[in-house]
Amino acid sequence: MVGAPLNKASLPSANGARTTTTLSSDSVLALNTGDPTVFEPFWQKMGDKCDVLIRGSDLMSYYSDKNNVCWFLEPELGDAIKRLHGVVGNALTDKRHIVLGTGSTQLFQALLYALTAPAAPEPESVSVVSSAPYYSLYPEMIEILHSGLYKWAGDACTFNEDGRPYIEVVNSPNNPDGTHRGAVVNGGKGKVIYDFAYYWPQYTAITSAADHEIMLFTLSKCTGHAGSRIGWALVKDKDIAEKMTDYIAISSIGVSKESQVRAAKVIGVLCDGCENVGLGESENFFEFSRNLMAKRWQKLREALKHSECFTLYKHPREHCLFTGEFTKTLPAFAWLKCKEGIEDCNEFLRGLKIAGRGGKAFGVDPIFARVSMLSREDEFNQFIERLVVATQGISSGH
Amino acid sequence: MVGAPLNKASLPSANGARTTTTLSSDSVLALNTGDPTVFEPFWQKMGDKCDVLIRGSDLMSYYSDKNNVCWFLEPELGDAIKRLHGVVGNALTDKRHIVLGTGSTQLFQALLYALTAPAAPEPESVSVVSSAPYYSLYPEMIEILHSGLYKWAGDACTFNEDGRPYIEVVNSPNNPDGTHRGAVVNGGKGKVIYDFAYYWPQYTAITSAADHEIMLFTLSKCTGHAGSRIGWALVKDKDIAEKMTDYIAISSIGVSKESQVRAAKVIGVLCDGCENVGLGESENFFEFSRNLMAKRWQKLREALKHSECFTLYKHPREHCLFTGEFTKTLPAFAWLKCKEGIEDCNEFLRGLKIAGRGGKAFGVDPIFARVSMLSREDEFNQFIERLVVATQGISSGH
Repeated sequence: MVGAPLNKASLPSANGARTTTTLSSDSVLALNTGDPTVFEPFWQKMGDKCDVLIRGSDLMSYYSDKNNVCWFLEPELGDAIKRLHGVVGNALTDKRHIVLGTGSTQLFQALLYALTAPAAPEPESVSVVSSAPYYSLYPEMIEILHSGLYKWAGDACTFNEDGRPYIEVVNSPNNPDGTHRGAVVNGGKGKVIYDFAYYWPQYTAITSAADHEIMLFTLSKCTGHAGSRIGWALVKDKDIAEKMTDYIAISSIGVSKESQVRAAKVIGVLCDGCENVGLGESENFFEFSRNLMAKRWQKLREALKHSECFTLYKHPREHCLFTGEFTKTLPAFAWLKCKEGIEDCNEFLRGLKIAGRGGKAFGVDPIFARVSMLSREDEFNQFIERLVVATQGISSGH
Repeated sequence: MVGAPLNKASLPSANGARTTTTLSSDSVLALNTGDPTVFEPFWQKMGDKCDVLIRGSDLMSYYSDKNNVCWFLEPELGDAIKRLHGVVGNALTDKRHIVLGTGSTQLFQALLYALTAPAAPEPESVSVVSSAPYYSLYPEMIEILHSGLYKWAGDACTFNEDGRPYIEVVNSPNNPDGTHRGAVVNGGKGKVIYDFAYYWPQYTAITSAADHEIMLFTLSKCTGHAGSRIGWALVKDKDIAEKMTDYIAISSIGVSKESQVRAAKVIGVLCDGCENVGLGESENFFEFSRNLMAKRWQKLREALKHSECFTLYKHPREHCLFTGEFTKTLPAFAWLKCKEGIEDCNEFLRGLKIAGRGGKAFGVDPIFARVSMLSREDEFNQFIERLVVATQGISSGH
């Protein structure tokens, strides 16, 4: 795969993402990226509770805590992250190092380095795999610099590890299709990266506190603060945590302190709201955001009920330890499959002036396409409206 | 050079940088990195002028301006950067794209990608060179992932380009030695990256508005806000600017919005202060910081006047367009050269409990070492004290 050109369609910048968001009936709906603006109303309602004031002389140093493995992590953010996982119950933080990144995107690359960087002068290029459909940025992040340390080797389900070292990326719930995932390659020399970007109560049941060696999380999909570029890894092995820290030191000399301080504040307010469970949904972010997602999924399923064009994956109900109820998976993306007669789902969506991302970018057939469910309310409503019009148009023979 | 192990000594995290900053006579002075805390007092004096308030629902999207090449750049920061270069007169911004990075470190890597990423399936590995002594992070940033796109080829002065493509990095004033630099390789297929991290009036005379194809700047060394991780590139060629933006999208999906908003505010206050020139040094950041640097350099030269151990490079005076005066270069680092009888300057400094960075990391002899001049006041004074003690110790035969 070395030398494969970048798939510009899956960059956040490309394919309609730069189009205007002032909605008119002929403007393209940019639903090709997962910009999580859906959660803005909750934080607006919080008024001044999350306000952060930064003075001119604050946070000037590269360093946050010189005694910590991750020396650029502000201690208050480290504490907030531990509290968050405790409140939600989605991951264990005990006896783990927290490594901070400029989004989990940077941490993924730090891990590729940490898991493959050699002591020997001529390194073996390590295969990296993930079950299809896989997150479209994995191959691009892996291939962009034609690294001699690692290479993209495609779908984990068809991978033959053959006794060699490899890395499997497990994304659960999975982007794009929302399914729950586990590792599928059973080689002795494998390392597994668990990408838990969407393992939060608004998207899925929290079925257990995850207890893996390497786990990735991001603020973007948890609270919706994508602009902050804050991600974190929970890592058991100190050597791996140190190598990741070294990578982030070399690639950006740490992570914005302003974002860290603000993330700590936002997470703190979120946890306060969750712990006062008696106060109703208005103060509990996950109740609020889960209701929002549920309403959107209901509208989408309603719109496609009699569709001649698309089908949707059906997710099972599971018992959620956070809500104490049996809950549905409500993925951040709609993973649309076209019915017979339509060969390219993304192309078809484009005809409806909806920018999605086609199946090929995720390693599967173009009859699939991914569309964000996390847009602002007016964009989401337009999306539903265009789907309904298309369905009616086809049903009535137009 | 592929396969060369990382030189951990030049990472911000290593070699004493993690030691305590509570000063006692036996604690190690961590002057191996250029943490620019020297400028904190100015921003403290500014009181609430630079205050930035961020609300819970602000800055949530990945996007800042979908119509701009660099779609994650907040327009107010783009405007502030243009104003800053206008006020200082150190670079032209007309007909250039501003590409934002998580520090100029990330932009350097974005440039390596943008200048080498091929359309062809088997790329030629492009040589990257810089005149020794060169910034110690260049080789590490280039080699860390064993990229097939580019390779570190060492000192530009001894490089034979042989008609092949290459990249020369020109750092002026140069880190570590403060010299003014120009390109030295004259090949037809070369691209030049001008790293102007230190081309600001507190360090050197502003002799002209730089007008190159590709120029890098960083907030860290301009205002001292290293914790914000804000760097920018001024780039003439749209195609290069787009590729850089793509790289930053893939490596971190943009740059912290909180840092951007704050950087815009800090730069605005700095420019206001410079434009009210009549108000005296207390409001003009560059006058204040230049005076600070001048005092430190005077103390250092005084301390080493009769030293049997070290010599310092002498920089010429030049006419500065910003101050309107002939001014000395006052580098951010002291580039110490040991006198006869001491073979390893960094080792010798370590004996004085001063953590510097040895010449080898910069591609030259270990008789050289680099020591930061940008530490907090108490650390700087300790540094001078230890140099004086060492000098006296050796003079009196101990």
